[in-house]
Amino acid sequence: MEQQLIDYVKKMKHYDEALSVLYWDMRTGAPKKGLEQRANVIGTLASQSFQMATADELGDMLTQLEAKLDELPYVTKRLVEELRKDYDLNKKIPVAEYEQFTIDKSRSEAAWEEAKEQADFSIFAPHLEKMVAWKKKFIGYWGEKNGSAYNTLLDQYEPDMTTDILDDVFAQVRSVISPLVQQIVAKGQQPNTDMLFQHFQKDGQRQVAIEILQRLGYDFDAGRLDETVHPFMIELNRNDIRVTTKYDEADFRSAIFGVIHECGHALYEQNIDESLTGLPLCTGTSMGIHESQSLFYENFIGRNEQFWTHNFSLLQQYSPAQFGDVAVDDFLKAINFAKPSLIRIEADELTYVLHIIVRYELERDLFNGTLEVADLPGRWNDLYEQYLGIRPANDAEGVLQDMHWSDGSFGYFPSYALGYMYAAQWKHAMDKDIPNFDELCLSGNLTPIREWLTERVHRHGALKKPFELLHEGTGEGLNPTYLTTYLRDKYTKLYDL
Amino acid sequence: MEQQLIDYVKKMKHYDEALSVLYWDMRTGAPKKGLEQRANVIGTLASQSFQMATADELGDMLTQLEAKLDELPYVTKRLVEELRKDYDLNKKIPVAEYEQFTIDKSRSEAAWEEAKEQADFSIFAPHLEKMVAWKKKFIGYWGEKNGSAYNTLLDQYEPDMTTDILDDVFAQVRSVISPLVQQIVAKGQQPNTDMLFQHFQKDGQRQVAIEILQRLGYDFDAGRLDETVHPFMIELNRNDIRVTTKYDEADFRSAIFGVIHECGHALYEQNIDESLTGLPLCTGTSMGIHESQSLFYENFIGRNEQFWTHNFSLLQQYSPAQFGDVAVDDFLKAINFAKPSLIRIEADELTYVLHIIVRYELERDLFNGTLEVADLPGRWNDLYEQYLGIRPANDAEGVLQDMHWSDGSFGYFPSYALGYMYAAQWKHAMDKDIPNFDELCLSGNLTPIREWLTERVHRHGALKKPFELLHEGTGEGLNPTYLTTYLRDKYTKLYDL
Repeated sequence: MEQQLIDYVKKMKHYDEALSVLYWDMRTGAPKKGLEQRANVIGTLASQSFQMATADELGDMLTQLEAKLDELPYVTKRLVEELRKDYDLNKKIPVAEYEQFTIDKSRSEAAWEEAKEQADFSIFAPHLEKMVAWKKKFIGYWGEKNGSAYNTLLDQYEPDMTTDILDDVFAQVRSVISPLVQQIVAKGQQPNTDMLFQHFQKDGQRQVAIEILQRLGYDFDAGRLDETVHPFMIELNRNDIRVTTKYDEADFRSAIFGVIHECGHALYEQNIDESLTGLPLCTGTSMGIHESQSLFYENFIGRNEQFWTHNFSLLQQYSPAQFGDVAVDDFLKAINFAKPSLIRIEADELTYVLHIIVRYELERDLFNGTLEVADLPGRWNDLYEQYLGIRPANDAEGVLQDMHWSDGSFGYFPSYALGYMYAAQWKHAMDKDIPNFDELCLSGNLTPIREWLTERVHRHGALKKPFELLHEGTGEGLNPTYLTTYLRDKYTKLYDL
Repeated sequence: MEQQLIDYVKKMKHYDEALSVLYWDMRTGAPKKGLEQRANVIGTLASQSFQMATADELGDMLTQLEAKLDELPYVTKRLVEELRKDYDLNKKIPVAEYEQFTIDKSRSEAAWEEAKEQADFSIFAPHLEKMVAWKKKFIGYWGEKNGSAYNTLLDQYEPDMTTDILDDVFAQVRSVISPLVQQIVAKGQQPNTDMLFQHFQKDGQRQVAIEILQRLGYDFDAGRLDETVHPFMIELNRNDIRVTTKYDEADFRSAIFGVIHECGHALYEQNIDESLTGLPLCTGTSMGIHESQSLFYENFIGRNEQFWTHNFSLLQQYSPAQFGDVAVDDFLKAINFAKPSLIRIEADELTYVLHIIVRYELERDLFNGTLEVADLPGRWNDLYEQYLGIRPANDAEGVLQDMHWSDGSFGYFPSYALGYMYAAQWKHAMDKDIPNFDELCLSGNLTPIREWLTERVHRHGALKKPFELLHEGTGEGLNPTYLTTYLRDKYTKLYDL
């Protein structure tokens, strides 16, 4: 029975890989005229995959194995648990309702796009109401997890996460970051960032990106780098983990820091233990833990002084007019500048989490019944004013800026903030084992750092749940003080506060 | 029932497209470590596709529609005919035998590789004997077509083709080309080809390739160009027709002429009538007709004097040191040089067909029982000496050079030669409608040429069988004199014979 289940889910993963290749291809240069027919291909394969994921045959195997769960080898036990979670998620919703949801969702996505373009929330509002209503209805089928409707959604992205935990850690984070941001604004001095925005040829950026990926330990025999519009990392199989990036010749940061970020995701997937190959457990364990790996690389390595002391010559080599006369020190100040802004995806390391806290509080209140969709824009603007000290002039740069709510992805946003906190917590734990972190960055030998993360995080894939991983890897539960301490120390020094 | 069949086969095509994307990806840079798992993905999808292709459900639909074949719309009628052909091919072989064949085939492929490397036919001989025996056995199941075993195989690549026809046309072709080649050798004067082999940067070659594809009318919104080791064109769907090429910095011809060749294949697929979208009829009608399109572009456009008079500046722009001081006239002589050689894939326009005739005669005799595998190498060498005037020094440059026989693809080779003859026949018919062909090439306006081919060939897809297409498009059956006249005129002039 165990082997039968394993064979079954491996076959399911074959469809997933095929679908992922189709998706990757569509986003890295598939010709546009072919996309209409391509959508049909994806429809056929996705439907086959969904049939396998909801088949009674699978349900029966799970039920039989659950009857002797504690006798099973650990891997099989976890496999059964994870499969049961997905199976119920898919199976508990009546098919007709799910189909109607899918239709409403695609209308909602279209309405959101139009609303954003016209900066008119009223176009999107009725669709958003439907999305909230659908998710509330689904929660009715799934059941409330950890005592509230919103916790059910949180659990889907970050197992066992709750509003109690988030309310607590976000309050701590906000109490440190908001004043820091105010101090920076009050001081009124920003570093010179002109050198960031000079022309940097695409081909040169690509060479730098490839070189940096290699220096970070990305294995090009088990991956590749391609160009896209909205960058992503994608797992096709354990030995085929691809990264993508976007080249902006007027701002090289989108490619270089984007690649460092995606590399963090990719290193996670490339270093999962080989024994999990082909199983659904062969992937990151949660959105938040995944984001902790990308943010670890983006912030703790990609913005590290010694890392750039070692690597700055790469930028000088490929864009000499831009960087030839720049001192590393000035470059570091420029890439670490912080200031309150309205758009999440353009936010800096210091203020980013505040953007997430705004969204979290609004989602939480929408689902726990204390906020109506109609009141969202006003509340959004008030919170931005309160936490960041600035107020959107219209809804396009306010409540309409992100697409997540248009497709019903409520509960996803907190993962980004968790990634920041987890990353700082890994860094703190790592410092005990690797006290010469900065020296390693300076020498270019990042192997011990990557190996530490592989040992504590990567290799386990989804075998361990987030809190288990964190406890075993850092000796404690989620602790936001490592993030706040890091940010306070760093920005106090940078801005001489 | 008609609609039911159409829905069924469209779904089959979805699996084909997914498999084609996987295949394209594997040949254009998929990371090598991921290929082992990828093979399993392909296995799962191919098996699903094969199940659909051999399902009783499909057989029943075909039987029901065949009962009223003449009442069906023409497209459905042809669809049923083509599906029946494939269905029987797949279904008539007992599954266990086909599985054993597949195993023997992969052993045979491996043995061929080793035999070629060691230039030792004896390593390959027992496997080749098995491949021949399997195909003879399969022909037993399929039935002899047009009176002989080998004709059954020919029909699979080129419907209705027979050894009677090929014996006749090949004799005519050989009677002209062999003496021409001897005259060139006897004359002993070859053009200077040094400029062909100078260093041409890959990036520049890619730019030239893209520009030439555009000038030939290739639609980049319905296709893309990628790099590979063994170039090919691949149809994913009617609006996604991709070409690939290989860049050799020491011989730009492999990329540029390769791209012109693949473009001919691609234009065929890009210009099939929209009404055939998603059907199995939405593809070229035979290997030979397909090759006629690639060879039309490669030889009648890509080696045309006026074409290069118009386009030579492109080469000069991207490789000025190589071509800056070269006269177009000298370039044309160089790219049209001809001399007998041993390796088919390196052969020139004049001698290529002789390589095919050798292979054809050997295959024909193997299957009609007048030649044993053991006698192949000797007969191969004798025929090369007789037709081309040169003799291989060993079997690696002789009978072991091509992989086709190792996987049982007997009957395929003649398609290449048919492509040459068909192409010349299209050109002859086109000359009546487009007497200013050379002027169009000189002016760079290739649209009327492409549109003529679309009208007579492309748009029909597989709706018409090869001979029907040829008859309707040129007013007569296969006539090899257009090829022989063209070659005689061209090479007599080039070599001043």
